[in-house]
Amino acid sequence: MDNILDKVNFPEDVKKLNTEEKEQLCQEIRNLIIDVTSKNGGHVASNLGIVELTVALHSTFDTPKDKIIWDVGHQCYVHKILTGRKKEFEKIRQLGGISGFPKLSESEYDNFNTGHSSTSISIATGMARARDILKEDYKVIAVIGDGSLTGGMALEALNDSGSSKTNVTVILNDNEMSISKNVGGIPLYLSKLRTKTGYTRSNRKIKQITNKIPVIGKPIVSFAHYTKQVIKRAIIPNMYFEDIGFTYLGPVDGHDIKKLEDIMERSKKIKGPVLIHVVTKKGKGYKLAEENPDKFHGISAYDKKTGECSKKQDYSKVFGDTLIKLAENNPKIVAVTAAMKDGTGLKEFAQKFPDRFFDVGIAEQHSLGLIAGMAKAGLKPVLPIYSSFLQRGYDQIIHDIALSNIPVTVCIDRAGIVGNDGETHQGIFDLSFLSSIPNLVIMAPKNFEELEKMLEFSVNIDKPVFVRYPRGGENYKFEKVEKIELGKSEIIQNGTDLSIIAIGKMVGRAKEVANLLPEKSIEIINARFLKPLDEKTILKSIQKTKHVVTIEDNLLRGGLGTAIIELINKSNIENVKVKTFGYDDIFVEHGKVEELEEKYGLTAEKIAKDISII
Amino acid sequence: MDNILDKVNFPEDVKKLNTEEKEQLCQEIRNLIIDVTSKNGGHVASNLGIVELTVALHSTFDTPKDKIIWDVGHQCYVHKILTGRKKEFEKIRQLGGISGFPKLSESEYDNFNTGHSSTSISIATGMARARDILKEDYKVIAVIGDGSLTGGMALEALNDSGSSKTNVTVILNDNEMSISKNVGGIPLYLSKLRTKTGYTRSNRKIKQITNKIPVIGKPIVSFAHYTKQVIKRAIIPNMYFEDIGFTYLGPVDGHDIKKLEDIMERSKKIKGPVLIHVVTKKGKGYKLAEENPDKFHGISAYDKKTGECSKKQDYSKVFGDTLIKLAENNPKIVAVTAAMKDGTGLKEFAQKFPDRFFDVGIAEQHSLGLIAGMAKAGLKPVLPIYSSFLQRGYDQIIHDIALSNIPVTVCIDRAGIVGNDGETHQGIFDLSFLSSIPNLVIMAPKNFEELEKMLEFSVNIDKPVFVRYPRGGENYKFEKVEKIELGKSEIIQNGTDLSIIAIGKMVGRAKEVANLLPEKSIEIINARFLKPLDEKTILKSIQKTKHVVTIEDNLLRGGLGTAIIELINKSNIENVKVKTFGYDDIFVEHGKVEELEEKYGLTAEKIAKDISII
Repeated sequence: MDNILDKVNFPEDVKKLNTEEKEQLCQEIRNLIIDVTSKNGGHVASNLGIVELTVALHSTFDTPKDKIIWDVGHQCYVHKILTGRKKEFEKIRQLGGISGFPKLSESEYDNFNTGHSSTSISIATGMARARDILKEDYKVIAVIGDGSLTGGMALEALNDSGSSKTNVTVILNDNEMSISKNVGGIPLYLSKLRTKTGYTRSNRKIKQITNKIPVIGKPIVSFAHYTKQVIKRAIIPNMYFEDIGFTYLGPVDGHDIKKLEDIMERSKKIKGPVLIHVVTKKGKGYKLAEENPDKFHGISAYDKKTGECSKKQDYSKVFGDTLIKLAENNPKIVAVTAAMKDGTGLKEFAQKFPDRFFDVGIAEQHSLGLIAGMAKAGLKPVLPIYSSFLQRGYDQIIHDIALSNIPVTVCIDRAGIVGNDGETHQGIFDLSFLSSIPNLVIMAPKNFEELEKMLEFSVNIDKPVFVRYPRGGENYKFEKVEKIELGKSEIIQNGTDLSIIAIGKMVGRAKEVANLLPEKSIEIINARFLKPLDEKTILKSIQKTKHVVTIEDNLLRGGLGTAIIELINKSNIENVKVKTFGYDDIFVEHGKVEELEEKYGLTAEKIAKDISII
Repeated sequence: MDNILDKVNFPEDVKKLNTEEKEQLCQEIRNLIIDVTSKNGGHVASNLGIVELTVALHSTFDTPKDKIIWDVGHQCYVHKILTGRKKEFEKIRQLGGISGFPKLSESEYDNFNTGHSSTSISIATGMARARDILKEDYKVIAVIGDGSLTGGMALEALNDSGSSKTNVTVILNDNEMSISKNVGGIPLYLSKLRTKTGYTRSNRKIKQITNKIPVIGKPIVSFAHYTKQVIKRAIIPNMYFEDIGFTYLGPVDGHDIKKLEDIMERSKKIKGPVLIHVVTKKGKGYKLAEENPDKFHGISAYDKKTGECSKKQDYSKVFGDTLIKLAENNPKIVAVTAAMKDGTGLKEFAQKFPDRFFDVGIAEQHSLGLIAGMAKAGLKPVLPIYSSFLQRGYDQIIHDIALSNIPVTVCIDRAGIVGNDGETHQGIFDLSFLSSIPNLVIMAPKNFEELEKMLEFSVNIDKPVFVRYPRGGENYKFEKVEKIELGKSEIIQNGTDLSIIAIGKMVGRAKEVANLLPEKSIEIINARFLKPLDEKTILKSIQKTKHVVTIEDNLLRGGLGTAIIELINKSNIENVKVKTFGYDDIFVEHGKVEELEEKYGLTAEKIAKDISII
């Protein structure tokens, strides 16, 4: 057969195909995804798993009039390919290329900017209600994975949406995985649903059968009125989704286009909220990804044949290895993750200490409450969590941890610029949102070795500690790492003309800047602690140089720069010049880390040029 | 009978009583609660509803060895009375007196500091796991209301806890209310559970009956193996709690001490997580509160006989009235609340526009996602929300609103110091956590009239707007309120010695300060916008006076003071002296607003004294 994808650019092209052609189209899309992601990296397994579902959606619904909201959004590659971005797909996740997530600015087929989990039902319900009030006529469909369904926001939304009586369709893309294997009661419940032969198909049959059930005197008589409902419930497990107000359809094979189209057509005729339970396989059609869906969740460039991708030492690995060492000597140390076991470097810890490892699923709020409870009752819990996802637990940090000074260790992975995942994943808010919270200890290591020491420090101090470090590897080697003391900075080199105060990976940047300006006598201070800030050492340096540069991998407002400016304001040192480097009140798009730092003036060359006149 | 409460100070005293005496004790506790709250204000209805449950807990469990975690915590009055704080109860919620919420520092019977909803299952599960790992031996009990159960954090925790296999008891205190009448699918589900006669009691009976069900040939034969389970499900509705891993006990009458004790004793023998469903009545035993549980949720001092309490005009009322006026002229305006219809002033709006009013239950994250969806699809949604609860939606503000510049209006009620509810409810973080987020418009009105104008402005601008205002009424009258323009401040009075820049209610404070310092020529600027800040007007004033004072009802880091210091640092104006007034890196305890402002140096007198030497 001819290549079909060549002729498909928009949903109307999909609608013209017969089922066999659609099946071929799916295979061609799979090949394209593997080709491109093996070069660019990206979310492989989830997109391979959702090919048929996406094709069925665009052939059944009338997009862009009908609105599809992709939960998280990393599974939107097929959608992008089918909605006018086949050519642009080659440059996905590259600076200037299309995003790996839905983007309003890219296409009228993208209805919301997403990147974080568990938001789609809220957004879709809001849109559906708006449509009703504005008396418009279109469908709204939220597509959400079973992993995202354990997130509190999704569960809150289900509660509201189920009772809303508005026409909204929730497609539960159940691949038995979030990122790692799912955990908890809800996945258990879904697995019960999955093993049944299908509620939809059985419906008519049940009706026939129950009508025939004879009434045969006591004690059965008294139960006769229960029986019909009861049989329905026997066919499928307890219908929680129906109890909270949804019409439940499914489960349906998510790789059978015809069946998917049929069930979607049926859903259109139902009034009120509908939930379609679709069962898919992550990595479908690519053996390596089917067998290793975790590895192929979010992956760097890889070899198509072998699945190999270059893996260097990184902060996550250093974290994981260090934690094992610490845990060997301290039985009170436990590790908690919100569905990020592999990404945060906990895989080996989990194998080594299965009874001291807790994966709570996509549930950031709960993960912070949980470690608070653990610490209050005597453990030393350590929670590694991506910076942008820690945003979900802001209130828990204040209310459950800081307020009571609970001694937990939160390790903020992917802090600062993360690169190709873009706007929703950049970890540039954490220093800002943490620094105003009383009682916290906030640190960032300049390199791997310092992370090790900070971790050791954090599990031995009776305070809530937050340690942040970037995605990937260290970029500058230092000869030594001094002992960590609470609230003590480290002087990297002495100087008299200018004080550069930096934190985390930007300490290496400061050294590079100094190397580019050999004519200046530069003092470099590794702040180490944003809180408590080493006011004494910093003021002493400023008193001497009267010229200060701060560098951080964070938004400026509320971060290190702010802390230094406020410190100077409080002090009696006059005529000090301060220049702050960081991200200035912006969202940062996708691209390579180096490209983005270049664009926003944070490379050593740009900083050196900017301050050379000081 | 003699007074029993006189002899009861600790749980061991409760344990000595017989059932009849315990019942009398409950009545005496009710009288004490009504006496004290009618003077001090407080949470009346929830505490009256939980008297028997608390007595049963302390007579059945071995506190403080066994740990009770009170969700939210405002229902802890009975617990405090029974755990050594009967005398101190007279001064509850007063400065220096005991808190209206559980406090670690008060008693070994309080196991966690709480105040926000939906945290207890996380904390309890964490403690239970710690106990297991440390091989200790005690019970952990979370007591959570049905309203709190719709909060995402609680639902996340249920998912994890249910599959944990650890011994933890969740007591669901189902009073069919959160603060207002509950909404959504989960309450619907609970109401189905409640109407059944009792799962526990029926258990044995079901077993007997199902064993007797005859097998009578096709088609019944093929269903026979379903039938037993099926009948169990007919007796109670779908057992979601059991499906996700809990052993479910109940429902039980929450005002029958004997039954409560029995079911608690049974729960102790069960391995793994247990959920006890207790049905209570808010306000129980006090007719006025039973009839008006909303009013008696959190109430100021009131008349015991009539229930009347003095009600002055306040910001919430001004907000509600203004929104009605705006909505009359703009059919796109809708209002959303997360279970705070009355508290935020939406009661009349809901009556007047029932189709444009949405109460989503305790579900802050969802409420922000929902308004984002609504706005994206063409509505003008307005969400009033308490400052401390908005903390729950921090990630949604960034990810679902700011990132895409979605034009919603969020009205932050109870911003700044709220008074007697104390640490967990003070709204002093919002300016800090919002100010670092790109794209937001952040405002605060100096008085009622300015709130009206800001609201009107906000629904007519195509940006995400956050308007914050305090609990209660305005404290300073101004002659005029200028028109609101984006990013424009208002000069209240001109001067040449000193610039006082204030925001929100602190503009009135600035005027009072100026009145106390007639010898100085003071320029007062009402900032109006924290973001975008009116840099031009402010710099012009600073250029002139070179002396700046900022006043805000917020933490210093990240708020108005920070913004002004950063602005000056960026500018070329030299030798400027800045003094910032606000809360400096602390949690603020309970007490009257005036008392707390006095304590933290924010009264006009203290500020005037502090700056008189400038």
